[in-house]
Amino acid sequence: MIALLHPECNLRHKAGIIDAIQQAGLRARIEPHDEGERIGIPGAGEELAGTLEALPGVRGILHQKASYGLVSRLDSEPPSQPRVGSIRFGGPELVIISGPCAVESEAQILLAARAARAAGVQMLRGGAFKPRTSPYSFQGLGHAGLELLAQAGQEVGLPVVTEVVDPGDVELVARYADMLQIGARNMQNFSLLRAVGELGKPVLLKRGMMSTVKEFLLAAEYIVGGGNPEVVLCERGIRSFDSATRNIFDVTAIPLLKQETHLPVIADPSHACGIRSLVPHISRAAIAAGADGLIVEMHPDPDQALSDGAQSLTPSGLNELMQSLPAVAGSVGRRLSS
Amino acid sequence: MIALLHPECNLRHKAGIIDAIQQAGLRARIEPHDEGERIGIPGAGEELAGTLEALPGVRGILHQKASYGLVSRLDSEPPSQPRVGSIRFGGPELVIISGPCAVESEAQILLAARAARAAGVQMLRGGAFKPRTSPYSFQGLGHAGLELLAQAGQEVGLPVVTEVVDPGDVELVARYADMLQIGARNMQNFSLLRAVGELGKPVLLKRGMMSTVKEFLLAAEYIVGGGNPEVVLCERGIRSFDSATRNIFDVTAIPLLKQETHLPVIADPSHACGIRSLVPHISRAAIAAGADGLIVEMHPDPDQALSDGAQSLTPSGLNELMQSLPAVAGSVGRRLSS
Amino acid sequence: MIALLHPECNLRHKAGIIDAIQQAGLRARIEPHDEGERIGIPGAGEELAGTLEALPGVRGILHQKASYGLVSRLDSEPPSQPRVGSIRFGGPELVIISGPCAVESEAQILLAARAARAAGVQMLRGGAFKPRTSPYSFQGLGHAGLELLAQAGQEVGLPVVTEVVDPGDVELVARYADMLQIGARNMQNFSLLRAVGELGKPVLLKRGMMSTVKEFLLAAEYIVGGGNPEVVLCERGIRSFDSATRNIFDVTAIPLLKQETHLPVIADPSHACGIRSLVPHISRAAIAAGADGLIVEMHPDPDQALSDGAQSLTPSGLNELMQSLPAVAGSVGRRLSS
Amino acid sequence: MIALLHPECNLRHKAGIIDAIQQAGLRARIEPHDEGERIGIPGAGEELAGTLEALPGVRGILHQKASYGLVSRLDSEPPSQPRVGSIRFGGPELVIISGPCAVESEAQILLAARAARAAGVQMLRGGAFKPRTSPYSFQGLGHAGLELLAQAGQEVGLPVVTEVVDPGDVELVARYADMLQIGARNMQNFSLLRAVGELGKPVLLKRGMMSTVKEFLLAAEYIVGGGNPEVVLCERGIRSFDSATRNIFDVTAIPLLKQETHLPVIADPSHACGIRSLVPHISRAAIAAGADGLIVEMHPDPDQALSDGAQSLTPSGLNELMQSLPAVAGSVGRRLSS
Repeated sequence: MIALLHPECNLRHKAGIIDAIQQAGLRARIEPHDEGERIGIPGAGEELAGTLEALPGVRGILHQKASYGLVSRLDSEPPSQPRVGSIRFGGPELVIISGPCAVESEAQILLAARAARAAGVQMLRGGAFKPRTSPYSFQGLGHAGLELLAQAGQEVGLPVVTEVVDPGDVELVARYADMLQIGARNMQNFSLLRAVGELGKPVLLKRGMMSTVKEFLLAAEYIVGGGNPEVVLCERGIRSFDSATRNIFDVTAIPLLKQETHLPVIADPSHACGIRSLVPHISRAAIAAGADGLIVEMHPDPDQALSDGAQSLTPSGLNELMQSLPAVAGSVGRRLSS
Repeated sequence: MIALLHPECNLRHKAGIIDAIQQAGLRARIEPHDEGERIGIPGAGEELAGTLEALPGVRGILHQKASYGLVSRLDSEPPSQPRVGSIRFGGPELVIISGPCAVESEAQILLAARAARAAGVQMLRGGAFKPRTSPYSFQGLGHAGLELLAQAGQEVGLPVVTEVVDPGDVELVARYADMLQIGARNMQNFSLLRAVGELGKPVLLKRGMMSTVKEFLLAAEYIVGGGNPEVVLCERGIRSFDSATRNIFDVTAIPLLKQETHLPVIADPSHACGIRSLVPHISRAAIAAGADGLIVEMHPDPDQALSDGAQSLTPSGLNELMQSLPAVAGSVGRRLSS
Repeated sequence: MIALLHPECNLRHKAGIIDAIQQAGLRARIEPHDEGERIGIPGAGEELAGTLEALPGVRGILHQKASYGLVSRLDSEPPSQPRVGSIRFGGPELVIISGPCAVESEAQILLAARAARAAGVQMLRGGAFKPRTSPYSFQGLGHAGLELLAQAGQEVGLPVVTEVVDPGDVELVARYADMLQIGARNMQNFSLLRAVGELGKPVLLKRGMMSTVKEFLLAAEYIVGGGNPEVVLCERGIRSFDSATRNIFDVTAIPLLKQETHLPVIADPSHACGIRSLVPHISRAAIAAGADGLIVEMHPDPDQALSDGAQSLTPSGLNELMQSLPAVAGSVGRRLSS
Repeated sequence: MIALLHPECNLRHKAGIIDAIQQAGLRARIEPHDEGERIGIPGAGEELAGTLEALPGVRGILHQKASYGLVSRLDSEPPSQPRVGSIRFGGPELVIISGPCAVESEAQILLAARAARAAGVQMLRGGAFKPRTSPYSFQGLGHAGLELLAQAGQEVGLPVVTEVVDPGDVELVARYADMLQIGARNMQNFSLLRAVGELGKPVLLKRGMMSTVKEFLLAAEYIVGGGNPEVVLCERGIRSFDSATRNIFDVTAIPLLKQETHLPVIADPSHACGIRSLVPHISRAAIAAGADGLIVEMHPDPDQALSDGAQSLTPSGLNELMQSLPAVAGSVGRRLSS
């Protein structure tokens, strides 16, 4: 259940509302919403609805038709716009994130950061903790990788996003990263979702490769319900019977998610197809479908990459891609940051 | 194996080449190619390659790296451009096809045809023979449906495409249709593929809902190898574990197919998602990904449609979609027919 | 809708019932059922139900809860038992069918037939018309293959089953075969389903490789609704994201189908996994799950097979498999023919 | 790479071998194997192989043909047999585990434990930490649930298995459980795999619902490579396009895994199909296919269960299932514990 607060709801009103919720044995999750605020109340029933409706400061009660009430979109209200520094997801300007799959060395991440900056992207990505199918594959540089990533980001003036895979590492990663990524394999790692739900930093949540759109939204509901409303969703391809491409990019999920949730939705064309030459096409398709941004893998020297080289753009490939995007964005009423 | 003919290959040369192929017990499939011609020789081996290379008129021998040699794309050569009347698939102008799932009555198809014409599409679609999962669903008007479709097309001046489902009906359907469609359920109906392979009319081949990209290309190879090079491919969504949308639109397949084959590739956003409100987004994504056109379901009164109403645009919905396409097409170097 | 006839329904009663159905503009499909008969009436509504219930000879009206009313199972009634000569599917005795993927030569099919006979199977299989993904793969011997198969069957005294792929070939194939197979790729070839629905011979219907259980039952409904109640279903594996085996054998579908339909259900372990060494395990699992029989590929010399060699048992492999089956069958209350 | 030790390899020999491995900058993972021991050396190359072969105590060097060298099966050697108390997985006797999806109360788990004991199973299951798709679903009793489960197990004399979902909880769970389960959603939670890899207790690893057989084996490789060779695999169904059943039980994976790995393989028929009436059939199919045991959900009152009631057997249902198993087991050369 969600209680929408009246624009003129004052602090005394609010205290009364929260009190009523807590007396019912439930938790109140206050989040900014539209011009005012709303309160998510997981598990609330009819009785509490009646109580709250009578309180001053309450504009209305929303019974969650969807099972993901906190992230579901109400027709009458604008989407939310999580921020990373001065960057705003979900607004008219697209957010493009780029960088290597993994931080491999100081030189590599710095080269990548400069190339990303030169190409005009808004954020830098790079993995320090890598979830790898085989225990014998490169597992990332860990803590050292975080430091190198943060350094490179500072040097070129780009905020950074990196993956966290262990609830015990959330604090550590949050010290270095401007945004934390939950990867596809961890979309239903509920301990991890709860851990980033208690965080004061935005989260990039990737769709599991085997997850439905509804499960994706419920995973986001864990984070928002935990107290962190700053969530950006990322479609990155799902599994199919065809091995022609690494995954099937579920482009339809983008407009569907935008209808269902107020959270922004970006796309990862690199994991979606796994083939460098297809990445620019998928990128443009995602934007034409209404995506709020992209996260694209780029490596200074893809053929030497320790992971995902085959799907990484070169710096010049990224540059070409970036130059092609303003026209596509413009064709659907969006623009790139200037 | 494919024998490429020299631009100056004359009729005597050609007769000699064909003779050599037939003496080897094989069939020669001559098809226009680039500025000249090429001869597909299914099943040919090394020995014949040696013989042919020595003959006058032969520019070179292509050993098929792919198992779909006749439809596979050679880097150095332009894609093929099948024509339906004055319409050309695969050129700079996109081809938009629209109309109802099924022809239901004279009034319905005429209304649809006029709406399609008014919206500015290039071709009219409408099913007369409907392959339906349940024997109790509307199965189409059959022969009478073909007549109504052809009439409506003539009245508004649009060529028509309609599905054929039985090898025994190919001749009948070809009398009325400008282009024959092989539907998703029949993509591996090899008798039907062979039957349209002997036809002198273009074929719209839809990807099976459970077919890989390679199987799709091999199905096209049946038609082209049968003697009919006028094939247009259509991505229309594949099955997945998620029931949020009717199918998963495999947008990645579009640029992948364009790399692999010289045949044009269009998209069917309606079957891909099954939800009206998503169709325009998928349409734009397909074009941004490089599709050569669209086939979009539109019904004068979708809520009364006998099939697929939920995914059909209204006439005004089609109109709005059409107005949004030139900008997207322009952003990837294409245009709509004026 | 189904009208169940009273055991004492006489011919005059029946004529009155059929008359009422035809006056309603509908078709009556009479089929043997339990000790008596039932009449399937596709498309019937409430009004006709009222009319029929009042007529003498009508025991009751079944409103089809399922959309596949003719093949759906009524709790109170025994499953149907289609026969091929003296062989009865769906009874206490399992029916084992074996033979090569394709008829390749007189010698090969005769060797196979003798090996099948020696191993103790009840029917011989062998393809004459082969639906192949590539136009360059062996397509079967056609009419000549039918003759060789029928000959081999007669020589060893086993009835034969073979695939038909074209509605135009149904009569031809029925001249030679004791049972006609509809393959996985043609499960939704509705023209073909209608053609075998008019046949007086039993049909082996294989599940499409990406068809749901409901679609499978609706495909059977086409055949039974067309007038041919002698249908045996065959689970043969469905597509998945994992290429470790050719398909995923959906063993759960077997007991589910046995609950949903009165038709017998057999299993094809060969196409299900595609790997010879796994076939005996899958065979035993299918029987333990309640299958009414098996269709297993066996080739006199699998390494030389023109198709599907990797999944074909050798004659001695088939022998070993057959010797292991009585114990498994016995553990679930079934037996092999002695 | 794996170094097989000679039966007469003494401690001094072993120290020399380990020393050589460490000098190469690699880790040595000693594990019991057959009658003796073997040493897994992740990441070792040719040079080290040469060095080790020359050392006393080394019987031979195995170059891992598979990428999952520690869990892969060598033809010449018997499968491993992890133990939980006096119970041995992978031997001639099947291991049957039963109990509720979740521990709900002291009374419920005690009733379940007694029913499991009475039916003759070998182990008790029950979830305390439940990974639930929705944050609003029952999440398990946590620490209290562990205590109740352990108590119930002790009362009836059955060892217990329960799921762990957070690396930080591994120690806690290990205090109460005789075996730790990694659930399907966590099969690629590599932090968790590493955490149980350092444990001295056996692990039940469930296959991810959309994981390939190879990924499943690589996940096991993380645990074994981490130092814990006591791993039992569990096939529990994978996702498909058909919603007729909760998942598709991949019965083929059972004999395939038994060929590929020396680890035992059991089946979870409850999650595989999600429908109570199908569970006994799937159970028998799994055993006929070669499974080493079962984990079956049973609840004293399934209709009141807080989770997974629809797929839980009743106590009497479990009883009936257990009585049907000896015959099936016997038909494939196995038996139930007496």
